[in-house]
Amino acid sequence: MIRIRDGAVSSRPDTLVAEEPLEIRLNGKPLAITMRTPGDDFALAAGFLVSEGVLGGAEELRNIVYCAGATADGSNTYNVVDVTTAPDVAVPDITLERNVYTTSSCGLCGKASLDAVRTTARWAVDDTCGGTAPPVRLDPGLLSGLPDRLRASQRVFDRTGGLHAAALFSEDGELLDVREDVGRHNAVDKLVGRALQSGALPLSRTILLVSGRASFELAQKAVMAGIPVLAAVSAPSSLAVDLAAETGLTLVGFLRGASMNVYAGEHRIALRAAAAQG
Amino acid sequence: MIRIRDGAVSSRPDTLVAEEPLEIRLNGKPLAITMRTPGDDFALAAGFLVSEGVLGGAEELRNIVYCAGATADGSNTYNVVDVTTAPDVAVPDITLERNVYTTSSCGLCGKASLDAVRTTARWAVDDTCGGTAPPVRLDPGLLSGLPDRLRASQRVFDRTGGLHAAALFSEDGELLDVREDVGRHNAVDKLVGRALQSGALPLSRTILLVSGRASFELAQKAVMAGIPVLAAVSAPSSLAVDLAAETGLTLVGFLRGASMNVYAGEHRIALRAAAAQG
Repeated sequence: MIRIRDGAVSSRPDTLVAEEPLEIRLNGKPLAITMRTPGDDFALAAGFLVSEGVLGGAEELRNIVYCAGATADGSNTYNVVDVTTAPDVAVPDITLERNVYTTSSCGLCGKASLDAVRTTARWAVDDTCGGTAPPVRLDPGLLSGLPDRLRASQRVFDRTGGLHAAALFSEDGELLDVREDVGRHNAVDKLVGRALQSGALPLSRTILLVSGRASFELAQKAVMAGIPVLAAVSAPSSLAVDLAAETGLTLVGFLRGASMNVYAGEHRIALRAAAAQG
Repeated sequence: MIRIRDGAVSSRPDTLVAEEPLEIRLNGKPLAITMRTPGDDFALAAGFLVSEGVLGGAEELRNIVYCAGATADGSNTYNVVDVTTAPDVAVPDITLERNVYTTSSCGLCGKASLDAVRTTARWAVDDTCGGTAPPVRLDPGLLSGLPDRLRASQRVFDRTGGLHAAALFSEDGELLDVREDVGRHNAVDKLVGRALQSGALPLSRTILLVSGRASFELAQKAVMAGIPVLAAVSAPSSLAVDLAAETGLTLVGFLRGASMNVYAGEHRIALRAAAAQG
């Protein structure tokens, strides 16, 4: 790598973010392919299957393995994983082709995308734990502090600047987990997959913070994991806002310093506290 | 949308970036689905097919139409386009399923992804126009000025902050075209598709500038369109650097002010000029 800094030219080695394809198979059948940062592959696969509505708990998962022999020479590239579900789990008849359609609700309008989430969701976005706990209610000041804490925990980011991050916080602002990936959606899948593996689903009283934008896909993943609050450093898409409004997800965008925009689910934000502090 | 600014709470309407799925069909057969910002859909479809090696010139394209009747009620959602190739164009036998595999080179290592680009590329990354012109050679100062000019041209970006952008510049730094989309890869497809429609492929003596990171996918699209220089505001991935080094693409990352990193193809950057200015 040749570095140019205000006219000074220097040559130096550089740390780059690895990016390789991962094929996810379900009970031996190809289901999806994603370009990802290698690492946490089993969590990525498990989290992806939560987003797809296939898995809802650790007991539904029998095992995950890397497939040897997926290439012509029979070597193990560590780029193909096979997820085997427990014997009593009803697995939908998903092929790779059908999956591409269902995940993106192809050929249909945004409305159908919302319908797809509604019909496959395992849990409502419900933060009352079955009515026994008060709903989650967040002080804007607590949200304001989260991006800095995410950045502080991003070791790899400091070295390459090329990774997206997703972090899971408790309603008290405690950092529960943080994952990074070349794809924001993969970072979220890795978080959700680790939660599934540790028996923490649904993630009822948590906050998901993502670097960058809040796309429909990220809002979908939050809803499918039962996460009640999605906060993003940048803008949400219109379809993400539609999904949040329909499912009861709290969606916060442009979370920067003491400023933020609340696009849906504002009942979880203590606006009076915000006004009192102003 | 509820806005919180340093404790002040206000409610206001907001402009959001639309995000909807687009299904691309090739001669009637479903080929790909992408979440995109509606608009420039025909260019997006055409550019996607350039990236896939299906189209190489405007004469190979017969027409592109929105499909009515793709939904249950027969309405036209403007989310499905069908690309018909000219009668004498040999179209590879691509199904949606096979396409997912070939584009991401699923189940294979990064090496195979590079092989796939090498075998489908229509043009070498060649900036000498068949040997009659001197190779492209860029002053770092010219590259430094491009991000500001991209941002200045981003009208939509100013309103929502949620769009990725891709811009095409001439080797003299003239802005040729700029496209925006919720997906960086779509913005590049739209640029390339418009170039195809206007008979400008291969884009031999141009610079492609993208907001954010330079992923493998973006480097692939540059190579497939014959673009010799890809510059990104943020980091490249390792596989993008591998592809650039192998194909002769000049790859510049972290293009910020007078600073930049050159990861491959440094013969097109006038380093002596940079040092002389320092």
